[in-house]
Amino acid sequence: MSEYSAPLKDMQFVLQNLVDMKEISSLPGFEDASEDLAGAIFEEAGKFAAGVLSPLNVIGDRQGATWKDGEVSTAPGWKSGYEQFCAGGWHALSCSPEFGGQGLPRVLSSLVEEMWNGANVAFSVGIMLTRGAIEALELCGSDAQKSTYLPKLVSGEWTGTMNLTEPQAGSDLSAVRAKATPQPDGSFKVEGQKIFITYGEHDLTPNIIHLVLARTPGAPDGVKGISLFVVPKFLVNEDGSLGARNDVRCVSIEHKLGIHGSPTAVLAFGDSGGATGWMVGEENRGLEYMFIMMNAARYSVGLEGVGLCERSYQRARDYARDRVQGVEMGGDRHKVSIIRHPDVRRMLLQMRSRTEALRAVATVVAAAMDKAHAHPDEATRRQSQEFVNLMIPVVKGWSTESAVDVTSLGVQIHGGMGYVEETGAAQHLRDARITPIYEGTTGIQAGDLVGRKIARDGGAAIRRVLNEVATVVAKLRAPDDELLSAVATRLESASIALDRSVQFVVNTYERNAKSVAAGSVPMLEMVGMVAGGWQLGRACLAAHKLLKNGSGDVDFLRSKLLTTRFYVDHVLTKVPALAEAVLSDTSAIADFQDDQF
Amino acid sequence: MSEYSAPLKDMQFVLQNLVDMKEISSLPGFEDASEDLAGAIFEEAGKFAAGVLSPLNVIGDRQGATWKDGEVSTAPGWKSGYEQFCAGGWHALSCSPEFGGQGLPRVLSSLVEEMWNGANVAFSVGIMLTRGAIEALELCGSDAQKSTYLPKLVSGEWTGTMNLTEPQAGSDLSAVRAKATPQPDGSFKVEGQKIFITYGEHDLTPNIIHLVLARTPGAPDGVKGISLFVVPKFLVNEDGSLGARNDVRCVSIEHKLGIHGSPTAVLAFGDSGGATGWMVGEENRGLEYMFIMMNAARYSVGLEGVGLCERSYQRARDYARDRVQGVEMGGDRHKVSIIRHPDVRRMLLQMRSRTEALRAVATVVAAAMDKAHAHPDEATRRQSQEFVNLMIPVVKGWSTESAVDVTSLGVQIHGGMGYVEETGAAQHLRDARITPIYEGTTGIQAGDLVGRKIARDGGAAIRRVLNEVATVVAKLRAPDDELLSAVATRLESASIALDRSVQFVVNTYERNAKSVAAGSVPMLEMVGMVAGGWQLGRACLAAHKLLKNGSGDVDFLRSKLLTTRFYVDHVLTKVPALAEAVLSDTSAIADFQDDQF
Repeated sequence: MSEYSAPLKDMQFVLQNLVDMKEISSLPGFEDASEDLAGAIFEEAGKFAAGVLSPLNVIGDRQGATWKDGEVSTAPGWKSGYEQFCAGGWHALSCSPEFGGQGLPRVLSSLVEEMWNGANVAFSVGIMLTRGAIEALELCGSDAQKSTYLPKLVSGEWTGTMNLTEPQAGSDLSAVRAKATPQPDGSFKVEGQKIFITYGEHDLTPNIIHLVLARTPGAPDGVKGISLFVVPKFLVNEDGSLGARNDVRCVSIEHKLGIHGSPTAVLAFGDSGGATGWMVGEENRGLEYMFIMMNAARYSVGLEGVGLCERSYQRARDYARDRVQGVEMGGDRHKVSIIRHPDVRRMLLQMRSRTEALRAVATVVAAAMDKAHAHPDEATRRQSQEFVNLMIPVVKGWSTESAVDVTSLGVQIHGGMGYVEETGAAQHLRDARITPIYEGTTGIQAGDLVGRKIARDGGAAIRRVLNEVATVVAKLRAPDDELLSAVATRLESASIALDRSVQFVVNTYERNAKSVAAGSVPMLEMVGMVAGGWQLGRACLAAHKLLKNGSGDVDFLRSKLLTTRFYVDHVLTKVPALAEAVLSDTSAIADFQDDQF
Repeated sequence: MSEYSAPLKDMQFVLQNLVDMKEISSLPGFEDASEDLAGAIFEEAGKFAAGVLSPLNVIGDRQGATWKDGEVSTAPGWKSGYEQFCAGGWHALSCSPEFGGQGLPRVLSSLVEEMWNGANVAFSVGIMLTRGAIEALELCGSDAQKSTYLPKLVSGEWTGTMNLTEPQAGSDLSAVRAKATPQPDGSFKVEGQKIFITYGEHDLTPNIIHLVLARTPGAPDGVKGISLFVVPKFLVNEDGSLGARNDVRCVSIEHKLGIHGSPTAVLAFGDSGGATGWMVGEENRGLEYMFIMMNAARYSVGLEGVGLCERSYQRARDYARDRVQGVEMGGDRHKVSIIRHPDVRRMLLQMRSRTEALRAVATVVAAAMDKAHAHPDEATRRQSQEFVNLMIPVVKGWSTESAVDVTSLGVQIHGGMGYVEETGAAQHLRDARITPIYEGTTGIQAGDLVGRKIARDGGAAIRRVLNEVATVVAKLRAPDDELLSAVATRLESASIALDRSVQFVVNTYERNAKSVAAGSVPMLEMVGMVAGGWQLGRACLAAHKLLKNGSGDVDFLRSKLLTTRFYVDHVLTKVPALAEAVLSDTSAIADFQDDQF
């Protein structure tokens, strides 16, 4: 069974050509983030991903996490893998130095995170949620909460969870019913059932810190009456040692299509009188706080999509190289590897070009996060944040929908062998299928995109992107190169189609939100595809320039030109089609009678 | 857990409006095939599918088939279900009356077959392969072979298999190595290993009749040296009773992503000296015979796609009706079922409109099979057969690729619940994922389409389809109805794009087959989408006419108009995009260096 191999060369290409690393490392707090440091970290992270996390992936899938009498055991070897992960300091990579983190810029940690996802997404999703809990406590926790929980969460000695969903409250958090009753000592008794809690119970660490949405007595109905509570599995004594077991119990774990290594828990809070918790931040602002974590988590789930695409691509490519079947078209009677067959090459290039586009977009967004966080200029911070806000639903929705398609192609390239579980290709599809669902379905992301991110500012943020695309189109036209010009033409057509759709959204949302909503997912796909074309267009320009200067690896750089060429012909061409759907009369969707479905 | 419900009303609509049932029942041998008979059969088949096959589907998935010491047990209840299936005469539905079949026209049996697939595809795939064996023996078997095997295969007392694949010979059957050595008594000793043999071993029947591809001594290399053999699991005595156990052994069964109820066997022939077999038809014509079965099987796998789409749609629709979450856009604060949310409606209409399009196309192709088989006029027979030949790779490739998309949407509509296996939505995706692979991958279908079905006759057969589309476009324009006109415009754009692509294929195939092959799958998708638009366009015309005449169920007929409207806006709009990919410079696919993948 082949192991994951971090695509270091591709990652470096993105960092060197699509991101201004000089600018990032000039930001306060990121002074150490040089290209050399990035290289060293990537090298070590790649080794860890390939050597430790990837070999745990199969056993995680086959044996999965198991539940017995309220206790959950992770798959054999996972505890040791987790300990090595923490011992290597990987857990703290992008956390704040104040609590023991390394404070690496997001642009670097995002690529490392892609590696964890590529090697073992069922493992890395637990890390990701702990980071979410860390961010929430950093941002909204009291000093006491910070000092109690943060150092041990940052080191990985404990893990964290996000407890939002209840049986009747999935996408609609206004329906949350869990109760939190204040106690004389300032704590709360938390009661209620939470479902779909990732790593809600496990044996990796001695304690688990649950962040829980619940309602205080008399809180307003709906989302305005939800508060956030920290509820540790074991209470923590003043000296930091573990005290009594809290009244939270894992009732069961789910039997899922994929990510079997990741325990998805049903948690009962307060079956024996109430779990002891403490309010985080202010009363009734829980949803707001959760959304801060949620945005980070959504971006991270996008990276899961990227990692899964890369992993599935690598496996399919290796199989296509090894598997001898048939003869070359127009060649002699010699049997060849299937990588020589045009349709297999088409599928590999679909996988590869989309993966590169997803990675490039996610990395550029991560760079904007760093600028939004640390740039000295307020206007730059604000514009960077607006770009991040615009792109988070796109990175989430488009990367994960792509991951389903790409991993499905990975199965297809294997033929019958892809359907046999031992091959490993099918696991990637099974694992990928959750990503367009959790942390907000694609429909939720698309609603966020068209409503809050496009209509609300009258299309200002997305038009700035379209202007940048126009600049790239002009640059692609300048050298009078056949391939670059072809890329320019496709990119321009796509951005015109997107522009028309943006206009439609902006003009229509106020008076007919339903009609916009009916096309919101196609809209999200368009934005993703155009953003991918924008970044691959920039990659193409960079490769062209390096080739002209005679610097760099010629074959590698030429492959970048060809990946872009393929992408604009086979992916970007879909943008005008999606615009037709967005702009079409949506009365069929509105008028179809419910009872005729 | 909800059970499958046969979409009788939709099926009747197709039969009454898209197929000339009067013509079919005027064909020799099909005189009894009235609309009334169809109605009665559909009703009973629907009951059997819902009442017997559907309840066996979940246990088939959970417990699957199990292997022990060379014996395979099907899941609990499956043997009884199979016996009821045979006792009901369902096995013999479309078989020739000469051997005990009912000789129903394909246009009716195909819709019944869709029901079996919708209810339990892991069950029905075994039936389908037995029918393949029946067809091969009917067509090429000796009288003795026919009388020995056919009555018991037709009744279902025994089942049949197709043994093509070997570890080194999947899509490329020229690499088949199994040996068949002639014996003095006219029989052959068959030796070799076959893999991926659907229902290659099981406990449903006392005997299994294997049809096996193997090479005789001194046979030419490649596909011209393959012969077909019949190798029963138990030899058959002259009186029809079972004799000695033959030298064929089930070494193992595969652990697959889906269709767990269907045992996929590795079979070893001749480990103890040679399995006794008899040649079917003439020496070295085995591949030709297999392709006759294969074409029937490919069409049938297309029907698996249709059945899976329908099943997945039903489950998603029922969930969307039941699941209350959020409030209606622009409505009051009342919580509503998610079927009210525009994006959920969009997904349901994607599922529904594609399912209806697939069913309509498959049924029209089945009607052409009947005419090709039984029409008294030779020219009609020939043209019908040419249409069938053109469409088989499309029905196979497009229905199955659609099934993967549609069942994936089925999971998505369920949100987090879709990822939990108990819900059942994920099983449909897992089951569907084999369909674009077995009986020839989509790449193989697409190669067949562009090479043998389009380029070889200079595009004649597909241009006849395009002419029919033009007629429908003209009819849609005539009534000056807004919806019909919109459908006409979309259908015309799509058919123009397809026409350009056909021209490209015809002009290019001879001199640059690779360049055509690089776009062959997009080409197949285009043909499928346009064929779907053609049939839904006809459905739209029929519904419009019935509504105008004031006959029929108004709400139902209006839903047909809206389904078509949705399809042309959200599916057919992709055709011009696919044409761009087909017509694009494919040098990126050809020139990408193998070592840069």
